[in-house]
Amino acid sequence: MYKAWGEKNWFIPDGYIPETSSGSLLSHESVCVLNASSEEALLKFTIFFEDRDPMEDILVVIPGRRTKHIRTSSLMKDGAPIPVGVPYAIAVQSDVPVIVQYSRLDSTQAENALMSTMAFPVKG
Amino acid sequence: MYKAWGEKNWFIPDGYIPETSSGSLLSHESVCVLNASSEEALLKFTIFFEDRDPMEDILVVIPGRRTKHIRTSSLMKDGAPIPVGVPYAIAVQSDVPVIVQYSRLDSTQAENALMSTMAFPVKG
Amino acid sequence: MYKAWGEKNWFIPDGYIPETSSGSLLSHESVCVLNASSEEALLKFTIFFEDRDPMEDILVVIPGRRTKHIRTSSLMKDGAPIPVGVPYAIAVQSDVPVIVQYSRLDSTQAENALMSTMAFPVKG
Amino acid sequence: MYKAWGEKNWFIPDGYIPETSSGSLLSHESVCVLNASSEEALLKFTIFFEDRDPMEDILVVIPGRRTKHIRTSSLMKDGAPIPVGVPYAIAVQSDVPVIVQYSRLDSTQAENALMSTMAFPVKG
Repeated sequence: MYKAWGEKNWFIPDGYIPETSSGSLLSHESVCVLNASSEEALLKFTIFFEDRDPMEDILVVIPGRRTKHIRTSSLMKDGAPIPVGVPYAIAVQSDVPVIVQYSRLDSTQAENALMSTMAFPVKG
Repeated sequence: MYKAWGEKNWFIPDGYIPETSSGSLLSHESVCVLNASSEEALLKFTIFFEDRDPMEDILVVIPGRRTKHIRTSSLMKDGAPIPVGVPYAIAVQSDVPVIVQYSRLDSTQAENALMSTMAFPVKG
Repeated sequence: MYKAWGEKNWFIPDGYIPETSSGSLLSHESVCVLNASSEEALLKFTIFFEDRDPMEDILVVIPGRRTKHIRTSSLMKDGAPIPVGVPYAIAVQSDVPVIVQYSRLDSTQAENALMSTMAFPVKG
Repeated sequence: MYKAWGEKNWFIPDGYIPETSSGSLLSHESVCVLNASSEEALLKFTIFFEDRDPMEDILVVIPGRRTKHIRTSSLMKDGAPIPVGVPYAIAVQSDVPVIVQYSRLDSTQAENALMSTMAFPVKG
């Protein structure tokens, strides 16, 4: 049995899916999760907006001893994806401790721009 | 009632509003705040400089269960914005716990450059 | 004798070695380690994937009072490197406390994109 | 009297001064420090390398209620700067708590790349 490293609650205030891409790579965001434990992790995403109620209870499973780099464009609630071109924020809550990093590739213009940060962990 | 996640005091030492933009996107910085609680959060910004006294008590409200991506160019004290092209630093203090991330898009040259980091949280 | 600063367990969920480079710089990732203590540090890397078992027990030595910027393409297990173009995650465990930062230079397109973050530290 | 926020010990494993610049902006790194207290802060930098002994006791003063964005190329020990084009790491120790962020602008190629992260804080 491998130990679970990390925290159960993670937050990313700066979510944004660029509307356009150019060049050879597609603009996208990834929520990258590492589940170092032997157990499967069940993640629950909440998506917050500036001007409307949150999208809640989007579920993702990460098998034990695996990573998953989740494209935010793949997150769906009742068949509806996160809207592009609007500011939003992400909360991730997991039933076992995991580690979460957020990265964005913006190819709005021909060359790429990259940013990355660990999500903000909260105990409890 | 939803719980307040995060901290009340956040710091960003590397503030800088680029003087010029080119291409299709405008150079800008965003202070991205997530207020996951049910209560409204009142934020108080302090802007520190290298060679003059701080700009104090710039107020921003974040409704409960909402995010706000605040352009630093929108922060005003007695009608005066943060000057462009000078190094500065940001302190954010909130009456309820929130989570704060800082990002900058620099389009000084035709293609974009992006950077992002969680602000530094301090308890108390 | 110099004190050991930092932590013994560090995690980086967003690992990715770009497949292509163009222009004058090569796409690469670096795991940058600072061993501020007087003692040698023995690091053990584990590489996690989305769809297969981890690569375990890749060893790297950092002398006392030295830094090492480790290219992920140099990490080998039984002569096999980390595959390029696939999402992965990194765990680093050290026998003495160290500090770990992760950076990526992507030169898939003619101009460069950079990202960097501290790895996520866990006590114990 | 204003309170001192932050920590006294900060670490940045991924230091690197690019050798070349092109376009309108110069490649550079900044160690950005916020001293939110009323007291002057005395900072002591140590520069670590891969293959030689550290440069120690480089001193910088930050006045109270001020920020300073320190170009690493301005740090000198006995008249000698940090060498360009070699991997290094930075430790910053302050006599009063401060907050430290590290950013790099790389203009090796015509367009810019940016990265930024909070330095890693250690108590004590």
